[in-house]
Order: sequence, then structure tokens, then C-alpha cells
Amino acid sequence: MGELQPPDIVRLAYVELTVTEIDRAKEFWVDLLGLHVTEEHATSVWLRGHAETIHHNVILTEAEHAACTSIGFRVRSDVDLDRAVEWFEARGCRTLDLPAGSRLGAGRTVRVEDPLGFTIDFVFEMDKVERLLRRWDLHRGAKISRIDHVNVVVPDAQAAHDLYTELGFGLAETIESSDHLYAAWMFRKPTVHDIAFTEGVGPRLHHIGFDVGERSNILDLADVIAARNLTCVERGPGRHGVSAAFYLYMLDPDQHRAEIYTTDYFTGDPDFEPLRWDVEDPRRRDYWGGHVAQSFFTDASPVHDLDGEKVKTAAPSHAGETVVGADGLR
Amino acid sequence: MGELQPPDIVRLAYVELTVTEIDRAKEFWVDLLGLHVTEEHATSVWLRGHAETIHHNVILTEAEHAACTSIGFRVRSDVDLDRAVEWFEARGCRTLDLPAGSRLGAGRTVRVEDPLGFTIDFVFEMDKVERLLRRWDLHRGAKISRIDHVNVVVPDAQAAHDLYTELGFGLAETIESSDHLYAAWMFRKPTVHDIAFTEGVGPRLHHIGFDVGERSNILDLADVIAARNLTCVERGPGRHGVSAAFYLYMLDPDQHRAEIYTTDYFTGDPDFEPLRWDVEDPRRRDYWGGHVAQSFFTDASPVHDLDGEKVKTAAPSHAGETVVGADGLR
Amino acid sequence: MGELQPPDIVRLAYVELTVTEIDRAKEFWVDLLGLHVTEEHATSVWLRGHAETIHHNVILTEAEHAACTSIGFRVRSDVDLDRAVEWFEARGCRTLDLPAGSRLGAGRTVRVEDPLGFTIDFVFEMDKVERLLRRWDLHRGAKISRIDHVNVVVPDAQAAHDLYTELGFGLAETIESSDHLYAAWMFRKPTVHDIAFTEGVGPRLHHIGFDVGERSNILDLADVIAARNLTCVERGPGRHGVSAAFYLYMLDPDQHRAEIYTTDYFTGDPDFEPLRWDVEDPRRRDYWGGHVAQSFFTDASPVHDLDGEKVKTAAPSHAGETVVGADGLR
Amino acid sequence: MGELQPPDIVRLAYVELTVTEIDRAKEFWVDLLGLHVTEEHATSVWLRGHAETIHHNVILTEAEHAACTSIGFRVRSDVDLDRAVEWFEARGCRTLDLPAGSRLGAGRTVRVEDPLGFTIDFVFEMDKVERLLRRWDLHRGAKISRIDHVNVVVPDAQAAHDLYTELGFGLAETIESSDHLYAAWMFRKPTVHDIAFTEGVGPRLHHIGFDVGERSNILDLADVIAARNLTCVERGPGRHGVSAAFYLYMLDPDQHRAEIYTTDYFTGDPDFEPLRWDVEDPRRRDYWGGHVAQSFFTDASPVHDLDGEKVKTAAPSHAGETVVGADGLR
Repeated sequence: MGELQPPDIVRLAYVELTVTEIDRAKEFWVDLLGLHVTEEHATSVWLRGHAETIHHNVILTEAEHAACTSIGFRVRSDVDLDRAVEWFEARGCRTLDLPAGSRLGAGRTVRVEDPLGFTIDFVFEMDKVERLLRRWDLHRGAKISRIDHVNVVVPDAQAAHDLYTELGFGLAETIESSDHLYAAWMFRKPTVHDIAFTEGVGPRLHHIGFDVGERSNILDLADVIAARNLTCVERGPGRHGVSAAFYLYMLDPDQHRAEIYTTDYFTGDPDFEPLRWDVEDPRRRDYWGGHVAQSFFTDASPVHDLDGEKVKTAAPSHAGETVVGADGLR
Repeated sequence: MGELQPPDIVRLAYVELTVTEIDRAKEFWVDLLGLHVTEEHATSVWLRGHAETIHHNVILTEAEHAACTSIGFRVRSDVDLDRAVEWFEARGCRTLDLPAGSRLGAGRTVRVEDPLGFTIDFVFEMDKVERLLRRWDLHRGAKISRIDHVNVVVPDAQAAHDLYTELGFGLAETIESSDHLYAAWMFRKPTVHDIAFTEGVGPRLHHIGFDVGERSNILDLADVIAARNLTCVERGPGRHGVSAAFYLYMLDPDQHRAEIYTTDYFTGDPDFEPLRWDVEDPRRRDYWGGHVAQSFFTDASPVHDLDGEKVKTAAPSHAGETVVGADGLR
Repeated sequence: MGELQPPDIVRLAYVELTVTEIDRAKEFWVDLLGLHVTEEHATSVWLRGHAETIHHNVILTEAEHAACTSIGFRVRSDVDLDRAVEWFEARGCRTLDLPAGSRLGAGRTVRVEDPLGFTIDFVFEMDKVERLLRRWDLHRGAKISRIDHVNVVVPDAQAAHDLYTELGFGLAETIESSDHLYAAWMFRKPTVHDIAFTEGVGPRLHHIGFDVGERSNILDLADVIAARNLTCVERGPGRHGVSAAFYLYMLDPDQHRAEIYTTDYFTGDPDFEPLRWDVEDPRRRDYWGGHVAQSFFTDASPVHDLDGEKVKTAAPSHAGETVVGADGLR
Repeated sequence: MGELQPPDIVRLAYVELTVTEIDRAKEFWVDLLGLHVTEEHATSVWLRGHAETIHHNVILTEAEHAACTSIGFRVRSDVDLDRAVEWFEARGCRTLDLPAGSRLGAGRTVRVEDPLGFTIDFVFEMDKVERLLRRWDLHRGAKISRIDHVNVVVPDAQAAHDLYTELGFGLAETIESSDHLYAAWMFRKPTVHDIAFTEGVGPRLHHIGFDVGERSNILDLADVIAARNLTCVERGPGRHGVSAAFYLYMLDPDQHRAEIYTTDYFTGDPDFEPLRWDVEDPRRRDYWGGHVAQSFFTDASPVHDLDGEKVKTAAPSHAGETVVGADGLR
């Protein structure tokens, strides 16, 4: 397998979610978070941040069950789609090669079930849309600029780390003990992460992270949420130890978790070395020492396989502390 | 005259402006600045900031000519309205005693022509409306909390200062030389000012100042204005020397000037002493040394008398430097 | 008693604290919070915010036990000092009339034991010092501009409210049920409060609140505290329901509690009506619904009487919910 | 020449400047801007931003004349240093291959005179130092996180653009007319630029741009500069059209120009297309329409050749508008 060249992934581009009521979901993702609607049909909506020229960062589709139906990475060229097929098939994974025209707003898409149980899309061509970066008059809600990362829960963080290392991801930060890896933040674009893995009952999607310009955007949204008497804030605002970013976590009406996030750092230097946090370090999770709700460590979105069936989850076999959630331990 | 007790003025409460096209004016004051509409009729609209419980901070009325038709101070009790009549009549000023019911959103109103040529209202009762302070979901534009001050142009700053001192105003800051007063910032509420006087061709209204919560509100509005491709910003964002506040000045479609302004200081201590800026100090005007457009020193809104006629202006007789504008000299 | 005119209080001016190690205390109040040192002796230090011209907002003195030894209000004139003596003596309170020269940085000071058990100072003359408002190069830490309020714990909030109403304080906000007052925010300067009373084991000092310019100052300090690996943050950053201000609470090395606080609102209108929060309203305490540490509801600083002895505390007799802390209930 | 592979440049890493008084220069770069001192000798100092692990972003060395003595790019591996030698020698450029040990804080360095007249360094190995990202207690001044870009003046922007395109740079934005290129923003790391070229009298260094976390950092520095009564601010704070970033420009005591800059956007998508601003668009330069000082269009730092001699400059031959400065036209 090692001989096969992995697809050249540029970055995380989008996440597809099913939601049980599309109008209620839009109140959260569009009216509250302020993602821009690129397109919408009866039961689906395609959303993006204001700095994006790609057609979508989030696709919401109404369905009976709420789940994450795919995580989409953008690759550098069409050849990388062939590579994705070969690379995953060599690992015994099911793949689908969806021709251009199959998916709205995107060209040919290779969809795979990765060995961790996630449905992953690889796409090169995406419809180009207007960059709304300078349209401050249209910025709303959290003023999200772009998708930044996903954080997923897996029963074996080391296995996930190893797989994505083979796929060409760099390692920015970890939470670990002397003999066990609990969590890993991994990147293709030179930021802290495109995807992070935390050990727990998985495979599940923990959250989607979005970039915003500065802290005032996050505080402003927290005030708006409170003013609307909503209870969707789960954690924060606060300062991460891992990534050093400022954050707020919210839950949508189907309990999909969104993070707004600002100011991490450049990880592209050729001698970049990951920052390894000890699992006992209380600041890894919240640098300020802030309270983290229990649900943050236990709850995450189910994921679907290529047939649209919910993927069965497994608990970690690691006999140490029970580990769930984006930052490591309870 | 000195024996008469002046009305006990609480603070600046509102300004009445005429505008030549009400819809166009609302685009500026409501859609852009984000003032909240308390009430509107065919050709008038009553606006307030989100921290106010009084019915209006600004009244816009469509008319043939754009002008400032009155500046409204709120007094502590009904008795102060009688005092206002007596105090100004003793100075030979014309007064109108408008009974409750005459003016929308306000009770009995004493309207006077002050010796400087401004039409000044005194009002005690004002209709109480919902304080939108905690309705962050409704805050828009500059997120104005309340009216803060007016700045007016007068041919004799010393005379204006002396009159308003007699009226009970405190003096927060000045611009002066060893033998001449160029500008004075005067207050009733314990902030830097409810009214400021700058020497120049007057009487005219230089600007209305509004309080906002912090600098990000001002920067956000500057971005929105640019994104809409508007040219209404005249000066700033910048930092004042006088008041030490952070500011932005804009011109409405009729060239009425609005300032958004944040973070001045408490002036209520019993031994408060005014800060006297030398007229040659370059930092009095813009603490950062920023550029100030020429129009800022020359342009201001005409004011109307009790008959609704435009008040004739006079130039300063002071033979020194030509002095116009809110901060002093060219 | 009702015939006696109370002293005309301008605002809260300072708080005196004893601390068990002055150097350690200075690390908190000076190095971390950034209060400016006006003067210091071997075992005492006089501190102020950058917008103040009065000699001190906080006096720290090393002593065997940590306590609040007085709360200082500034009055409008020397006559008000006589009134303070008479007013409190008419209520059977002990008073001390300390002549000018007795206290560093202040003139004649009337010190009383108020009926609630607090030692309260009244002072008119205070040494005038440089206003460091425009010395942004000297602003450090939280960039505190001035003292804003104290919050104290009392076993009977209604009694405290009634006493301070007689003293001339206005009422800005309350927490109450249909038949019981749990907390009251009261003011002389036209902001939300100079003093707040919360029902609980008292008399004790809950916290001293300081004004800062904007939210970024508070977030910046939270990051610095974390970077120094300190654990002094007890609560926040967050948004209050009461006052609508943005806040952070910290504990000094002797468990004296400091709040930094920004953006409340003008309470000086003549028809101002208090905002009454229902004791069951979850947003009264933290508008965002944030977690509040248990210590916030149970811990507070002891207060000393005129003899420097610790005042005995009493629990509330109200048979309802146990009530401790600045915002009301557990 | 097209057959030679260019060095794989990761990003701009540092700039070397000579200054006429090192202590005075340090007051600007260290005390005011807040760059962190990695190392210092009698007449040189090595500085970096708080998010860097490389030894330096700026080297200041005392010398008779102030100039830019080199611009340093970091490459992906040692092989790229060989490629740099070959690539530039094939273009007839002088090169120096400085072995490890020649330069403090860096390994083997290939120094070339590029065809535009700039002295350019290529380096792979740099001494690794502590990342001070989470040491908020040490962040000072503008709280600079890292070097972002240089902006240089050249007499032929098209030629510069073509050369750096061959070197592998992407093009983010331009200022152009239908038949002439006036300015080009070019990148290796996926941000708006590592280097920008503006047509004017060159070769000269226009400015060094540094990344900061958010707008409040820039505003805070502007206040500190004013408080110190310095006159080093040349332009801003303001909002760029090009890059959409928020900025402030300052001049050091030798008239070297520094920009602090926040929030540009991701340019790494495989179908990224440059944004082309019309040279007549007034918003290309300052999105808010702010005033730009004349010096910004005329003044820039001289550059030195491999012999340490000042490179002769040439004016543009383009017969159109005279073009100088970072954003294009006067």
C-alpha cells in the first residue's frame, strides 16, 4: 500500500449533515450563525462563509435521522481523485466515483468509506461563487469567513493518526500520556487542523469548526443568542490550550455541534514539530480553566456509511481513563 | 437675572432635524446607523438608541430645507419648565410653552430662542418605551446606545460658555490661548459634554454625537459603509485628544453630521477641573495626528428660529486665527 | 430621623482592604490588574484607575487578618460630612470624625458604623493626582479606568435597600420574588450601581467592581492570567443579566474578590424605573447561561468595625431559598 | 532557463535592515512594536513575533547608512538551496553560498542578487526557539505574531511579476489598467502575499508587514504611540481594499516602514484566481477612502547589493501616471 501515492488534499472543504427539520436548521445555520446561502432547494441548502469562492462549506438536507453523511476534502487536481480511489481500495475500502453532474455545486466526487468508518468525499472541481469577503454589509451573525476543521471521535486515536499520516496530513498538536495517544490535531492547509481525532465512542462527528475574524465576532454572537433566549451555547466563549484559539461551541436543533474559532497559527514551516500536551495538563482543554459541560465529552453526531446507514460505534479498548470529546478527558 | 434659578437640566435628550427626503434620510439614520424607530408617520420618524427608555433621540421631518429645528434638553421636573420660561424671558428671549399633547412622544415642552440663536427645547415628561439594551438580536449598524451630545458653532465661544455656565453647565475641556477661548465642552450629566461650542460662523449645528459600546462597533460600521460604496464618512475612525474618546464622523444625505463615539470619562467629582488645551497643541484635535478633512472645519447645519426661519449667521469678530469646526482651528 | 438631610454622596470613591502579605497583594492588584500606584509605604499602598484624579480607589494595608476595613464614599462638600455625622448618630451609629491630616491622600473623613455593620467613610477633600487617561503608554493589565462599585452581602436585603434609599440612593435593578427582595443594585452616580446588596451571611464584602474600556481589555487579562498559570479567575468572562455589563471576577491572594466590568447604562433620567428580575429567571445571573462556581455564592471578605474588630455575621432569617452571592441564588 | 526547477519557497522568513543608531532602532522595534528579542550583540539584534519558532523575522544592524540588506525566504529543504544557486546563476545573477556557521541563527544561506536588484536570501535551517504564542504575559506593543510580507518598489511591475511567477509564486491581487500592470501581490504560503511589487522608483523596500491577532491590537498601539507623543504613524489605522486587511503603517527612526496587519484570507485553493483592481478604483488603496500621506507614495528604503553597496534606482519607463507606493497611484 505504501507505494500508492495518496491524493494531494488541499484542505477541508465541506461537511454534509442531515437534519430533521430543514427550516429549523436554517434558523440556526443561516439566521443565527450567518452562513451565506449559495443555493437552496425544497429540502436542502448549500452554505458558505464570506471568504469562500467554493459553492459550499455545509450542506444541510432534511431526513428522518440527523447525521453526518460526509466530510469533504478538496484535492489539488483531477488526478488526485483517481489516487483517492486507488489508495482507499487498496485498503479494502468501498468507494463511489460520482461523475460531474451528480452533486450540486461540485464536479466529479470520489466518495469513500474510510477505515475509521467515516464517509469521506474527495473533490477537485467546485462551482465558483462570489467571494463576499469585502461585502461587510452582508456579514451577519458570527461573520464566519470559512470552514476551518472537523473534529471527530474515534475509538482508537493512534490508528486514526496513523491512517491520516499516511494520507499526508501533518500533526500539529496532541494530547497523550507516556504510552497512549488520546487526541491528535492534523492538517493539510498550514493551520492547526483540517481534522482532529479524539478517542471515544466512534466513529462520530464531534463538531465542525469555522473561522471568524476576531474575538468580538464571537462575543457578539453570544449576546445575540442570549437575547433570543436560546440555549444552544454548550461551551465558551473561552480560550483553547490546544491551538491557542478563542472559541464558542453551539449545538444546532439536531445536536450537531458548531464551533466558531479565531486566531490559530501557521504550521507550514518545514521543521514544524507538534506540540504534545500531557493528558494530565489541565490547560490543554481550556487555557483559562473554564468549566466544560459534561455533554461536550459524551455527545456527538452519528455518521452514515455509503448506503446512508448509520455506522455502528465502538468504545475505546484502551483500559485507561474513559476518553471522550474534542479536548481529551472528562 | 442672576437671582432666577435656571431649570435643572438632566441631559441632552434629542435633536430635531429637517431633511429634504425622508426615505433617503432613513436609509442613513435607520438602515446604516441602526437607530431604532419608535414611531413614524408619513413625513416624520422618531428614533432612539438601544439603551434609551425615552421616546426619541432624533426626530427627522421632511421639509424643503435641511436644518436643525431644535435641540432638546430634559429637565428634572415640571417646575423646571416654568423656570426655563422665566430664565430665558428675563434675558429677552422669545419662548413658546407647548402644552402636553402638542408634541408626539413628549409632554409639555418649553421652546426658546436662546441668546446664541439656537432653538432649545426643555421637556420633563417623555413617553416611556422599551429599553432595548439587552436585545442584542435587534442591535444594528453602529449599535448606538444613546444620544451623547451636540456640538454647535458660535461666533463667540466665550459668550456661549458664559451663558451655559449660568444655565448650570459644568466645563470639561477647552481649547484656548492665553487670551481667547476657542472651544468649550460643557456638561450636565457627568460625562465630557452634553453640548460643545466651537468658534466659527454661527449659530449652526456642527454634529450630533451618539454613544456606542466599544471601538469594534465603530470599525464595523466603517466597513459596512465602504462595502455599500458610500462616501458618507468625513473623518476617522480616530482618537480624540479632547474627551479621549474614539470616534467616527459621517454626513447624512442632507449634510447633517453624526458622530459615533465611545469611552469618555466621569466628570462628576466635586473638585473637577477642566482640561485646558492650548490652541497650538496639535493633539487637541486628533490625538493620533490623523488628517481632518477641510469640510469638517467649514460645514455645519443651519438652525431655525421659533418661526421656522433660518437664523442668520455671523462670523467671529476675534481677529486671530480663523476658527471653525468642532475641535478648533484649521 | 426623617427630618435630617443625608449627606450628598457623589459616588463610591475607594475601598480599604487589609491583606496578609503586601508584596503578594501588590502582585495581584498592581502587576496583574494594573492599578496605578499613587503612593506606597512599608506596609500600605494607595492605588487608582487611570481616569481618576483622586488619590486612591483601593488602599491595601498589611495586617494579620484579611478584611475590608472601610468603604469610602465621596460627598459633594464639607457640609455633607457634618450631615453624615448627624444622620448616622441619629440612627444610634458610632461615628469617628477624623480631621484633615489623619488619612493619607484625603482630607477630613467621617467614619461610621452603618446599621448593617459596615464601616463607611465619607470624605470630601481628596488629594488631586494626575489623570492618566491619555497615558495609554502607562496602561497595564486590565487597563482599569476607575472604581465603579462594591457589592456586599447582608442578611436582610430589604433592610439594606431601605437604609440606602433613605441615604439618597436610587435603585437600578433588583432580584425579587412576589414577596421578598433578594438583591438590590443602588446608585448615586448615574450608572447601575455604587453599591449592591445581596442577601446572605453578612455583613461581608462580596467584591469591588472596576470599570474598563471594553471587552478586549477583559479578554486580554484572562489570557495573561492563564499564561502566568494563575488560578485567580473565579467566574467569567461573561455577560451579566443584571446591568448588562461584560465581566470577569478574580480572587486576590487573600480571597478578596475583584470584578472588571464594562458598559453598563445611564440611570439618571428623572423617571428612571428599576428593572426587577424574577428570582427564578435564569438569565439574571449570567445572561449567557454560563457556569458560576459555588465559591461565588458562599465566599466573601469579612468586614471590620471602627475598632478594627471583625464584625460578627448573621445568616438571613428569610425562610426561602438560601441566598448568597452577588447575583442572588445558588 | 525554464527547465531548471526553482527552489521550493515556503514563505518570507526575515528581513535584514541596517539602522544608524541601534539603540534608537530598538526603541521602535522592541519597545514600541513589541517584537521579541531572540539574541543581541553590540551592534545587532535578532527579533521575532510571538508565534514564530524561527530565530528571527527581523535583523537590525548598526551601520553608517540605513538600508535593506537582504530579504530572506525559507525553503523546504537543503536541495532547494542548490536549486536557488542554479536558478539565479542561469539568469546571470551573482550568488553567494554561505555555509552553516556564517550567519547567526541560521544554517547554510544562499544569497543572491535577483534580476530586480534585491538581495535575496534562501535558507532552510534556522535555529529553533521557543514559540511564545501562549505567553500572553510577554506580549507587548502591537502583539506581533509573525512576519507576513514585504512590499517592494520596482520600476517595472510586470517584469517583477513575471520573474516571481517563474519562481513559483501565486498571484493574489493586482492593480492594473487595460494595458499595464501597476502592482502585484504574490504568495507562497496561502495568504495574500509574501511579497508585493509596486511600480515606482526602485529597487527599494517599501515596507515589512507583520501579522497581529485583531484590530484591537492595532488601535491599542496607535494610542500608545500618541501617548508617547511620537510621530511615527504615517498612515492608518484603516482598511485595505487590496487584501481586505486592517492596517497601520509606521516609520522607524531611519524611515524604514513597518505595517501591522490583520485578517487577510486563504489563497491556497487550486482554482484560486487573482482579484484585479482597476487602477482608477478609489477603494483599491484604502477601502474606507481614508487619506494617504504623500510620503507613502514617494519614500522607501534603499537596498544594498551583495557587496553592501547601495543599489542604483531607476524610475518607471511607463509613460502613464506616475506610480509610487504600496497601493499604486498617487
